[in-house]
Amino acid sequence: MPSTQDRGGEDARVARTRTDVSRAALEVLRTEGFDDVTHARVAESAGYSKTTLYAHWPTRLDLVGLALDALGELPHHPASGDLRADLIGELTVFRRSVTELRLDRLVFGLAQSATTAAAARLRDRVNAEGQRPLRELLGQRFSGARLEAALSMLTGVVTCPSLMFGALPADAVVEAAVDIVLAGGR
Amino acid sequence: MPSTQDRGGEDARVARTRTDVSRAALEVLRTEGFDDVTHARVAESAGYSKTTLYAHWPTRLDLVGLALDALGELPHHPASGDLRADLIGELTVFRRSVTELRLDRLVFGLAQSATTAAAARLRDRVNAEGQRPLRELLGQRFSGARLEAALSMLTGVVTCPSLMFGALPADAVVEAAVDIVLAGGR
Repeated sequence: MPSTQDRGGEDARVARTRTDVSRAALEVLRTEGFDDVTHARVAESAGYSKTTLYAHWPTRLDLVGLALDALGELPHHPASGDLRADLIGELTVFRRSVTELRLDRLVFGLAQSATTAAAARLRDRVNAEGQRPLRELLGQRFSGARLEAALSMLTGVVTCPSLMFGALPADAVVEAAVDIVLAGGR
Repeated sequence: MPSTQDRGGEDARVARTRTDVSRAALEVLRTEGFDDVTHARVAESAGYSKTTLYAHWPTRLDLVGLALDALGELPHHPASGDLRADLIGELTVFRRSVTELRLDRLVFGLAQSATTAAAARLRDRVNAEGQRPLRELLGQRFSGARLEAALSMLTGVVTCPSLMFGALPADAVVEAAVDIVLAGGR
């Protein structure tokens, strides 16, 4: 039986492995995409054996979960109290995250692979966290089906050009969307 | 040198092969997704050798192009002249297409793989054809950045729940979105 000292050393090693693998998984996710977050690819990138990865994180979703841990909280716009400015600010931060974090690939990969309860939980965690500030802002003006519609519409202003054309919306389009939604919500 | 008769027989065989392979590629695309439209998988499904497929259609994008040929024109709502009813009708048909044709997988697969000019042309063909009626309807009320915003927003009402949660919007959400956009466009 290992001494406390030995166990402490082992725990530290496992924690270091987790940190290394989390960072490698996030890097693969960001630069290569969801489909490439495999045990072989992450092991290669992190400098560990596939056997080590399988022992601690047996499924691909475990690796994606580690990547999300490394990602931490998604960036959000600090609220100023001016609804129009806050909506534009939040969408602008979201637009940047789509590019920098490849959020579109991540969300789509999760949605397509969410055929198990574990995958659905992971998907809902990312999506709920991602949409929370936008939902709260829109909740000042909308409720029920109109809130769901406004939330999907403003998310779509950023994600549709990205998903359909690999492009991001211009500032003028983001502002026009917020103005249409706010005018339509009166 | 083959006689005219022989060439006619050869042309007919090629045409039959093309039809068979197009249908198989579309079936794989619809039931299994973009990543599965490979020479191996389509050849197996169509009952031809991989060698035959590579000889006629050397790239995966050629196979996706064949699938789109088999798809034909995307279904659209026949316009009635009532803008609100026509927008709701078009989004409802689009919502059904997302389920029946797996349009979301197709569009995302094309967007992610559109790193070549050929892929970009294929992507733009599908997206332009898909959004054309909605763009024309919204063009009655919007132009410029406001038109792009309204187009992305109404596309997003259908695609965001699908891409983020694997779910489709309720009728009430589609109607609320159209009402917000039309009220915001006054």
